Amino acid sequence: MMKETKRVKVRRVTEEGGRDLQDTVVRESTLTIFLNDRELVTLLCTPAKLDYLAVGFLFSEGLIMTKREIKRVTMDERRGAIWVETKRGKEPPENFLSKRYITTGCGRGMSFLSPPEGGFRRIDSKARVSSEQIHALMTEFQRRSFVHQRTGGVHSAAICTAEEMLVFAEDIGRHNAIDKALGECLLSDIAMKNRVLITSGRVSSEILMKTARSGIPVIVSKAAPTDAGIMIARKCGITLIGFARGSRMNIYSENRRIKE
Amino acid sequence: MMKETKRVKVRRVTEEGGRDLQDTVVRESTLTIFLNDRELVTLLCTPAKLDYLAVGFLFSEGLIMTKREIKRVTMDERRGAIWVETKRGKEPPENFLSKRYITTGCGRGMSFLSPPEGGFRRIDSKARVSSEQIHALMTEFQRRSFVHQRTGGVHSAAICTAEEMLVFAEDIGRHNAIDKALGECLLSDIAMKNRVLITSGRVSSEILMKTARSGIPVIVSKAAPTDAGIMIARKCGITLIGFARGSRMNIYSENRRIKE
Repeated sequence: MMKETKRVKVRRVTEEGGRDLQDTVVRESTLTIFLNDRELVTLLCTPAKLDYLAVGFLFSEGLIMTKREIKRVTMDERRGAIWVETKRGKEPPENFLSKRYITTGCGRGMSFLSPPEGGFRRIDSKARVSSEQIHALMTEFQRRSFVHQRTGGVHSAAICTAEEMLVFAEDIGRHNAIDKALGECLLSDIAMKNRVLITSGRVSSEILMKTARSGIPVIVSKAAPTDAGIMIARKCGITLIGFARGSRMNIYSENRRIKE
Repeated sequence: MMKETKRVKVRRVTEEGGRDLQDTVVRESTLTIFLNDRELVTLLCTPAKLDYLAVGFLFSEGLIMTKREIKRVTMDERRGAIWVETKRGKEPPENFLSKRYITTGCGRGMSFLSPPEGGFRRIDSKARVSSEQIHALMTEFQRRSFVHQRTGGVHSAAICTAEEMLVFAEDIGRHNAIDKALGECLLSDIAMKNRVLITSGRVSSEILMKTARSGIPVIVSKAAPTDAGIMIARKCGITLIGFARGSRMNIYSENRRIKE
């Protein structure tokens, strides 16, 4: 916990006037990921579970499919660098990174809503979850958001069965929080099939692409979806739930998996 | 407004059971920015004020400093592309994009907290704002967040004097919302000096770098800052206010500008 937060001096102003006090804020640091000695990306992130973040990032970007492919993970926490070696030594294509990293000359400008290579894969999981179970999971999700409770400055993500939370992660980035959760599943041999992914963040196209790649059939957020997120959920057969607050929720796709 | 939102079918579940209805969600689209015919970046964004977004993005990235440099802005809204021509025809360096776009081989992995070229420029504005004025501005800020009120899915940003809101923008990305506000200032000849920047989003290092570049001396958010955001605010002499809710707020730096 200590690594994820920091005490700072703050002037708090209320109706009663101002006073100086110490407050807890979230820490922001960088992680540079190397894949087989090639520098891939530098992420701004919360400095915890960095091995999960690196492996989850590589999984989300399609550069690692299974734990078996990983030969070694070496971390230099002080420098904020991590090296992932894979057995196949597979080289990623020059411009492999997803939209949020796309810069110049990638020629994918107008195509983010077109299917990925091989088309949208439909997820045909028969998993079912009740609205009561989602309510219980969301309560547990809030309860475990320690860094958020202390700082108000992070997103959370979790992978669950209908009954229980298997992994939980927090990070200043909503993408990172999900990547940490996926990375922990991969490194700890926790299957993603038939699971429920919970996120505190808005559910955009990129989050849905990540969900589709992981094969997770149900994504739940307390926040809003975008139109493109809903479109991809429908194409991929993913149950997308937004505004899950208390016992209320909006189901935007595949409501056959939800027992009301 | 129509362009920014979309009606979708949703199954709403409450204690009373489920029912089908139509709901409004925010639209997500792409904008590819060309600078002097070179493709720079593709942003995921809300499709409104795209000229402001493009110009604000170029300003935030240091590729445009003033309106005078801009020769022509041409937009193809259907294709989601915009071309900005500058007089000097200045070419950006190969890897110019800020941290959030950094990918491979940029060699900036460990350096995001080191000063930008020329060092941190201190903002020595004598602007002062009272806590009551900030409260009033935040109330107006919430009132104008139409897309957020309807969809819950966007961030907002505004540039203000102590007394009034000069520009206001919404976008699915918190960076984009600020870039839209800065771009409108630039194109509409609204000075940024001595202003107050309001954002709905968390205040990370990147947001502070953007503020520092614009010369705006006060940034106010209803959300949390990160430790790196506070550090840059202190180095640049920017007043950073977080958790501005009702008449309460936390001042993390340069509280001399705030009349309590």
